[in-house]
Order: sequence, then structure tokens, then C-alpha cells
Amino acid sequence: MNDATSYTPPKVWKWEQENGGAFANINRPIAGPTHDKELPVGKHPLQLYSLATPNGVKVTVLLEELLAKGHTGAEYDAWLVKIRDGEQFGSGFVSANPNSKIPALVDHSTATPTRVFESGSILLYLAEKFGEFLPKDPAKRTETLNWLFWQMGSAPYLGGGFGHFYAYAPVKIEYCIDRFAMEVKRQLDVLDRQLADNEYIAGDEYTIADMAIWPWYGAVINNAVYDAAEFLDASSYKNMVRWTKQIGQRPAVKRGRMVNRAMGEPSSQLRERHDASDFETKTQDKVEAAD
Amino acid sequence: MNDATSYTPPKVWKWEQENGGAFANINRPIAGPTHDKELPVGKHPLQLYSLATPNGVKVTVLLEELLAKGHTGAEYDAWLVKIRDGEQFGSGFVSANPNSKIPALVDHSTATPTRVFESGSILLYLAEKFGEFLPKDPAKRTETLNWLFWQMGSAPYLGGGFGHFYAYAPVKIEYCIDRFAMEVKRQLDVLDRQLADNEYIAGDEYTIADMAIWPWYGAVINNAVYDAAEFLDASSYKNMVRWTKQIGQRPAVKRGRMVNRAMGEPSSQLRERHDASDFETKTQDKVEAAD
Repeated sequence: MNDATSYTPPKVWKWEQENGGAFANINRPIAGPTHDKELPVGKHPLQLYSLATPNGVKVTVLLEELLAKGHTGAEYDAWLVKIRDGEQFGSGFVSANPNSKIPALVDHSTATPTRVFESGSILLYLAEKFGEFLPKDPAKRTETLNWLFWQMGSAPYLGGGFGHFYAYAPVKIEYCIDRFAMEVKRQLDVLDRQLADNEYIAGDEYTIADMAIWPWYGAVINNAVYDAAEFLDASSYKNMVRWTKQIGQRPAVKRGRMVNRAMGEPSSQLRERHDASDFETKTQDKVEAAD
Repeated sequence: MNDATSYTPPKVWKWEQENGGAFANINRPIAGPTHDKELPVGKHPLQLYSLATPNGVKVTVLLEELLAKGHTGAEYDAWLVKIRDGEQFGSGFVSANPNSKIPALVDHSTATPTRVFESGSILLYLAEKFGEFLPKDPAKRTETLNWLFWQMGSAPYLGGGFGHFYAYAPVKIEYCIDRFAMEVKRQLDVLDRQLADNEYIAGDEYTIADMAIWPWYGAVINNAVYDAAEFLDASSYKNMVRWTKQIGQRPAVKRGRMVNRAMGEPSSQLRERHDASDFETKTQDKVEAAD
């Protein structure tokens, strides 16, 4: 191991504001708002403040799936939150989510607006509100929630652990890359074994557990995050490969991935979404660009 | 920063089985059972397989709170899982929780036994089963679940991040300690601000959100984990200090903390729990030890 240092932590930690790597400018040791700014509110019952990170995509996929099933009450305005510009520290956003992380949802269809934060909580809220993608059968419902909570507790090791140290940290630290690569491979194997016996994560039904897990672990399989598919030998997880492809082919998943996307191919970016026809405009853009 | 190295990751990660720090012997890059071993089953409807880590304590606190409210259906057998000995890799445990982590619950009161894993999923399952500690009012219920999911997604930065690098890793790496100390302080501030305006985490009611958060963040305030209270300036989070003390004084919390405890003062250890009278025996032990 080549990381050994003689570092001794101080008695009391101090904020140095240096050397945090990518995202250093938006990581802070204190919570609360940094500036006054109200959130915009559009015409639909559901107002989403988000960005097309894996946590953001979970929610836009569910909303598009609900709309595809005909739930017009799931119509939504999706507003872009530029986290690199610190927009999550505006007073309005902090009121919607005191944790200052995307996604945050505000439901204006209730007597007073209801704030819903944490992607897992938003998935559960919407699944219960519309009675979809969370099985009614008690045993299947419990199994779905087991995997939804599994995703919430596991993905920090993938994103905040492996992804950070493999792709974003200012130095490559062998101990950290090893530690988190091992855990991510274990998690991929947990999923791969589950998918050996089940079409979907929680059994024979497509549920919010799939929608929670696909944007993170499917992205590893697809090499859509961290450029680490080879490093993690992603193609060896055969059942994950099958499931990742299967979920990715759903039209609602394709639409959900585009919402609040502000990077990559222009034709893949629907920076804000206020109407179902917004996707058609993008498709038109694409056709014209190809001409 | 004194961690800079010239390390270049290999093209494909390999399991070296060395230098993992404390817990290295139980961290693996593969899932599934390592040996055949059925789980014991006691006389009660609920069978808990656990250890008194913060995640384990969440569940035993809730079970003791339910029993204190007179829910005899919450009677349970709590079996000790020695994770350092790899008992979580036995075939029976893996069937109950394919993720091989404590706590795992099996409910034998249902038509076929129901497996419940991930501590957050277990809290939600039991709260719904007994109609307690999860408000019926929709807005309050949503706020409780927001914070329950917040805990699940945040604590990996405290435990697997800060705790590991500050207390357990074989070397002290400044970059990692800084990164995770900053995040844990931010999380403590999120909670402290919430508790400035609310008696409990999700409002005016004691809920499963408190039971999820107290064993982790209350332990930081109490200096019960990582010996890091001074380093994190824990006493500056005044509302957290008030709440931590308030929750800790509840008799059910005191009992819950003892269950499946296998370290510390002998009088604090109830290694297995099969009957409410097991606590009385421990109290008797304590009296006799003090004589």
C-alpha cells in the first residue's frame, strides 16, 4: 500500500476550503440557505426541482411511467437546479428540502403544499398516491420496500465512495479505490443473484425498486458513469446486463432520462419539462439536426 | 495535502485480500452464502437476527416501544449474529437478507414467513403493522418518511465514510477524514436546524424517524461512537444535544440498546432476548454486581 502517511488529525476539525476535488465548491460543513430565492411554480399539481443525476432520474422515470399509464394527476413541471452554481442553497429550495440535495418535489394538490424530499421518499409517495408500481400483495410490497431501502443505503458507497475516489478526487488513493471497488462489486453480485431468479428486482413485477436501482447500477453496467465498467468487470454480471437492457428499452425510461439533463448530446437534453409535448419538440430538433 | 500518490489503478480490479483495516475479514467482493447454516426460530411471531450496532438498535428500540404500548404481537426473539465471525454469510441468514447485513427480521405471523431487511424497511414494516410511530395525517406521514429515507441515505457517510477513515482504517488519510468530517458536520447541522423548530425530527410526534436517526447521530453527540465528539465539536449542536438526551431517557430506548449487545459493560449486554423478563434478570445481575 502506498498511501501511508504520518497524518495526525487535529483535536477539532476546521474548514479549510481547499482541495476538495470536483464538487468542492458545493460541499459545505453547514446547512441552511446562503441566499434568498423563491422557487418557481408552474401550472401542474406536481412541481419537481431536480437535475438528471441518477437520483433525479429515478423520479422523472416514475412520473413518465405514471403518465404512460394514464394518470393525468401525475403531470408535472420539472425545473432545473444547477447544483454547481449553488442553486440548492436558495431559501426556497431549502424550504422544500432542508438537506439541499436534488430531487425535491412539492405537491400542490394537497390542502397545503406537501414537501417530499429524498428520492426514495418521493418514489414511495408517488407510488402510494397513484397506486402503481408498489404491489398491493403484502409480501410483494414488503419485498419491494426492502430493495428500495437497500438502494438508499447502498448507493452512497457507489456514488460518494467509489465514484468519488475513482473518478473525481484530486488524487488517486489506492486504499480508497480498493475499499469501495470491493463493496460495489459485492453490491453488483447481490443484484445479479437476485436477478438470476427474478425478472425484476423485487420479483415478477416492475416496481419502484427497479426505478431506484436502475439509474445507479444500470449506469455502471452501461458504463454511463465513472468510465469504470471494465475496471469493475461489469459484463460478468450477466443477469444485471439482461435487466439493464430490458429496463432501458422502456419508452418512459427513455423520456425520464432526458428530463432536467444539462450535459451530453443536445438532443438528449430536456433542461426543463412543462408539458408532454416538450419531448416531441426535442424529437423534432433531433430530426432537424440530422437533416 | 499529504496524501498525493502516483497510484494508477489497474485496468481491471483484483481482490488482494489484504490491508482492509478493522472488518477486513468480513468485507468481500462477492455475495451469497459461504456455508450452510439454518437460522434458529423461537416461540414468538417476530424473529430478529441482529447485533447492537446503530442499525440493529433502531429495530430493538421500536420493538420495545411497541411492547411498552401494549402490542403483545410485537413480542420477539432476538438472536445474536456475530458478524466478525461471518455468521451473516450462513445460508439461512442470506435467505433472510441476501445483502448479508444485520438487522434481518422474519415475521412468522403471516401466511408464509415474510422476510424484512434493511433497517429502514423493518421500521416502516413494523410501524405499519402496528399502526404506531408513523403519523396517520398524510402530511406528517410524508415528513416522517422524508427523514427516515434521509437517514438511510446519509448515515453511510457517517459510518462507512467518516467512522471508517477516522477510527478504523489502517492509516489516517487526511483527504478522506476532511471529506467525511465536512459532510457529517453538515448533516449534524441539518438535524440541529430541524430540531430548533421541532420537538422531534418530523414535528411534534415521536416517530420512527427519531428511532432511525438517534442510534447514529445521537451516538456522535454522546461520543458513543468513534470517539469523535470533540473533533466534530458535537456540543455546539445545542438542539441535537437536547434531543439526544430526551430520547435516551425513554425506558424503551434503554432496553432496546441492551438487546444483542455483545461489547461493553456486562450489565449492559443482553446478548439474546426471548422474553420481557430477560431485562429483569439483567437488572438483577446489575444489583448483585453492585452489592
